[in-house]
Amino acid sequence: MFVPAMADLYVGHPDWQVFAMSGILCGGIFTLAAVATSGPPPVFTRRFGFLLVNVMWTTFTIVGAIPFYLSSYDLTLAQAVFESVSGITTTGGTVLVGLDNLPPGLLLWRSLIVWLGGIGIVGLGLFILPDLRVGGLSFFKLESSDTSEKTFSRLASFTRAFMAIYFGITLACAIGYAWAGMSVFDAVNHAFTTVATGGYSTHDASFGYFQSLPLLWVATFFMTISSLPFSVMILLALRKRISVLRDPQILAFLGYLTVLSTLVGIHHHLTSDVEIGQALTHAFFNISSLLSTTGFASQDYTLWGPFAVTVAFFATFIGGCTGSTAGGIKAYRFVVLYGVVRAGLQRLIYPSSIAIVRYGRHTVEPEVQRSIFLFLALYMLLWALGAIALGALGYDVATALSGSITSLSNVGPGIGTIIGPAGNFSTISDPALNVMSALMLLGRLEVLTVLVLLVPVFWRD
Amino acid sequence: MFVPAMADLYVGHPDWQVFAMSGILCGGIFTLAAVATSGPPPVFTRRFGFLLVNVMWTTFTIVGAIPFYLSSYDLTLAQAVFESVSGITTTGGTVLVGLDNLPPGLLLWRSLIVWLGGIGIVGLGLFILPDLRVGGLSFFKLESSDTSEKTFSRLASFTRAFMAIYFGITLACAIGYAWAGMSVFDAVNHAFTTVATGGYSTHDASFGYFQSLPLLWVATFFMTISSLPFSVMILLALRKRISVLRDPQILAFLGYLTVLSTLVGIHHHLTSDVEIGQALTHAFFNISSLLSTTGFASQDYTLWGPFAVTVAFFATFIGGCTGSTAGGIKAYRFVVLYGVVRAGLQRLIYPSSIAIVRYGRHTVEPEVQRSIFLFLALYMLLWALGAIALGALGYDVATALSGSITSLSNVGPGIGTIIGPAGNFSTISDPALNVMSALMLLGRLEVLTVLVLLVPVFWRD
Repeated sequence: MFVPAMADLYVGHPDWQVFAMSGILCGGIFTLAAVATSGPPPVFTRRFGFLLVNVMWTTFTIVGAIPFYLSSYDLTLAQAVFESVSGITTTGGTVLVGLDNLPPGLLLWRSLIVWLGGIGIVGLGLFILPDLRVGGLSFFKLESSDTSEKTFSRLASFTRAFMAIYFGITLACAIGYAWAGMSVFDAVNHAFTTVATGGYSTHDASFGYFQSLPLLWVATFFMTISSLPFSVMILLALRKRISVLRDPQILAFLGYLTVLSTLVGIHHHLTSDVEIGQALTHAFFNISSLLSTTGFASQDYTLWGPFAVTVAFFATFIGGCTGSTAGGIKAYRFVVLYGVVRAGLQRLIYPSSIAIVRYGRHTVEPEVQRSIFLFLALYMLLWALGAIALGALGYDVATALSGSITSLSNVGPGIGTIIGPAGNFSTISDPALNVMSALMLLGRLEVLTVLVLLVPVFWRD
Repeated sequence: MFVPAMADLYVGHPDWQVFAMSGILCGGIFTLAAVATSGPPPVFTRRFGFLLVNVMWTTFTIVGAIPFYLSSYDLTLAQAVFESVSGITTTGGTVLVGLDNLPPGLLLWRSLIVWLGGIGIVGLGLFILPDLRVGGLSFFKLESSDTSEKTFSRLASFTRAFMAIYFGITLACAIGYAWAGMSVFDAVNHAFTTVATGGYSTHDASFGYFQSLPLLWVATFFMTISSLPFSVMILLALRKRISVLRDPQILAFLGYLTVLSTLVGIHHHLTSDVEIGQALTHAFFNISSLLSTTGFASQDYTLWGPFAVTVAFFATFIGGCTGSTAGGIKAYRFVVLYGVVRAGLQRLIYPSSIAIVRYGRHTVEPEVQRSIFLFLALYMLLWALGAIALGALGYDVATALSGSITSLSNVGPGIGTIIGPAGNFSTISDPALNVMSALMLLGRLEVLTVLVLLVPVFWRD
C-alpha cells in the first residue's frame, strides 16, 4: 500500500493518505495477529489446510478492498469488494470507469493486487492444492519427482526459482511493452496484470487505446507464456533438461489456442473487409486473452459476428495450464478427459478390456479421474446456479450465462452489451456483484476447496 | 402411411396419393429386404447391436421424411429430413408454418411418427441400451431383477405390458383433452405427441391456441406421467407391488419439476400483473413441457423476463426419467452425480474413507459412474460443437446455444426470437437444419451408441 501512496504523493493526489493510513492500519493488525499467535507452527492437517486457504483468500480480499472503499472514487461496499476480488483472483473485470484519468495510486493498487494474487495462485497450485488432493491435481506435486533432497530446502529452492522466473517474465514483459510504444507507467502496470493473467488496464479501451499491432503480439506472447505451467519453467531452470517441456497440457493448450485463433481470424477476414494480417493479430490477441483468462481486449470482438461470439463464450470455460496464473477448467483436465473418452469408447466394444488412461508417462488412477469429474460436475453446476441467480436479478440471458462463467473462470469480460469486451461492470447492481465475487473466489480456489467447508462432516469433532 | 392417406382421402386432399404411394413403396422394399435376409436370426454381438440401432433409426428417419418431401407442402430435402428426425426422436421442433390449415394427412403423419418414435425409444432404453452398457444404464435392465422366468417369455410379457400401458395412457390423454375442450382430431394428435413427449401440435400457437387453463393442467399431468420410467409402470402392472415406485429418479424428477415451476410461477406473478393461479398454471405447463422434453408452449415465456429465460435454458439440459420417452441428461444421472459429489467431498476430508455411491438400494459401481461421466462429457462437448457450428452458420448466440441443446436433448423450442417458444425452424437454413438433425439423433441414441461407430477399433477384423 505504500507503493501507491508514494505514487499519489508524487503527483500530489490526496488519495496518498488513504493508502498510507490503510497500510499502517493493516500492518498494525497483522503485526498484532502475528504476535498473538506466535509459537511453534501448528500441525498441518487437511482440515487446517482447507481452512487456511479459505481464510487467507478472504483476508486478502478484505485488505484489497479497503483502499477502493476509502478512496476518492465513490464505490459501494459491494463494488469495492468486487474490484478487490477481481484483482486478487486475477479476473480483471472492473467497476471503475474513466481509468485514463484515475490517480496513479489506484491504478497501481489494482495492478499490484493482481500481480500478488498471481503469486498466491501459483503457490496454491504448486504447493498446497496437490497435497489437499483437490480437483485431481496430484500430478502437479513438484516434490514427488525428486525424493533425494530434503523437503524444506527443496521448497525453498523451488520458491526462489519461481520468484526469479515471475520477476523475470514481468520485467521482460514491461520492457517489451515499453519497446512497443507504451509509457513506462503503462508498461509496468500492464506487465503486472499480463504475467498474472489478470487483465486490468490503465485505459477504459484496454489495449484498444494503443492502436498498435506489434504491441498486441508482445501481449499475446506474454499472455501465452504466463498460461504455461510454472512448475515446468521451474524444473527447466533448476534441472536444465529440455525434456520437462514434454507436459501434454502444454501441447493441448498451444493446440487449441492456435486452432481457435486461426479459425476466428480467418472467419473474421472472410466476413469483413479487414485484411488477413490484421484479422489474425486481433484474433490471436483476443482469443489468447480469453484462453489465458487474462481478459484484455483490443476491439469489441462481439461485433465480428456470431461465430466469434460463440467461440468467445466457450473459450471462457477452457482456461490455461495448471500451475500457471490462468483459471478456467484447464488444459490438463481436457487431456485426461480425452483419455477417459477414448478408453470408455473402447470398453463399449470390448467390455472386458482394461483401458489405461495416461497423462504423458503417468497412469491416471481412477481416483484422480473421479476428482476431475467431481470438479467438472461442480463447475457446471455453479455456472448454472450463478447464471440463474443473475437472471433472477434481471440480467439478460447473454449477460447471465457469460457473467457467471467469466467470473467462475476468472476471465473478466463476458458477452452482450453490458459486460462484453466493450463494456464493464460499473452498472451491475450490488447483489449481482456479490454473486460474481463469490463465483470468482470459488473458481480461483478450484471450487472444492471452498465447498468442502459446507460438508457437515468437516466441522465434526 | 395408410392412416394419413385415408384421412386425406376423407377430406378430399390430393396428398392421399403421396401417402398411399409411399406406403406401397416402403412396404415393398421392406418385404423384399425381409425375404432376402430370411433365415435363422443372426448372433447378437455387441457390434451387431450398435450397428442395428444406428441402421434402424437412420432407416426410420428416411422413411419418415418421404411423405414430407413428396407432399404438397414445399420442403427442401434438409427440411423434410429435419421434420422426420424431429418427429421420430420425439423432439418436436417444426419447419412447417400454417399448421392450422394443413391437410389432416400431414398432421396425422407428424403425430404418428412421434408416437411410434416413443415406442422405439422406450424399447431401446429398456431392452437394448442396458445390454450394450451405454451411458450407465445397466440398472435399468428389467431382466436382472427377476431370474426365475425364461428370457423370451419375460420379454414378451414386458412388451405386452408396455404396449398396454402406452396405449392406455394415450387413450386416457386423448379423452382428457377432449373433455377439456379439444376437437377429437386435435385430442388424438396431441395425445400421440404428449405421451411420446414429442410436442408437435396441430396449431402454430401450440397450446396457446386453446386459451384454456384446465387443458393446460391435463397436459401437464400427462407430460409428467410420460416422463416417468415405463419400467416402473410395467413392474407395477405385473407385480402389483407399490414398492417399485421407490425409484430415486422419480422423486428427483418430480422434485426439480415442482421447485423450478413454482419459482418461475411466483417470480412471474411478482413481476407482472398476472394473478398467481394463472402464473403457476402457465409456469407448471411450460416448465413441465421443457423438463419432459415435450416442447409444447402455452405462451411466449421468454417474455416473462430474464429469470424465466435462464431457467428455460438450463431446463433444456435436464430431461425426464430413464425408461420414459423423455430426453435430456435425465434424472437418474443427476441422482448418481449427487452421490458422487457427496462421496468426493467426504473423501477430501477423510482421504482413506471408502464412500459408497448408492442408487436406491443398489450400489453404483465405479464402472457405472465412469459411464455416466463419459456420457456427460460427450454431451457437453457435442452441445459446444453444435453451438459453434450454428454460430459459424450465422445464428446469434441465444439461437446457437439453445438450438444446439434443444436438439441434443430432444426438447423442441429454444430461446431467442427465431426458435423460441413463439418461433419455429422454418427460416433456419438447410446446413443448420442438418446440424440439428444430427444432434437430435445423437441425443436420442444416448450419444455413445452413435459415437462408438467412429472408433477405428469398432471396424477392425
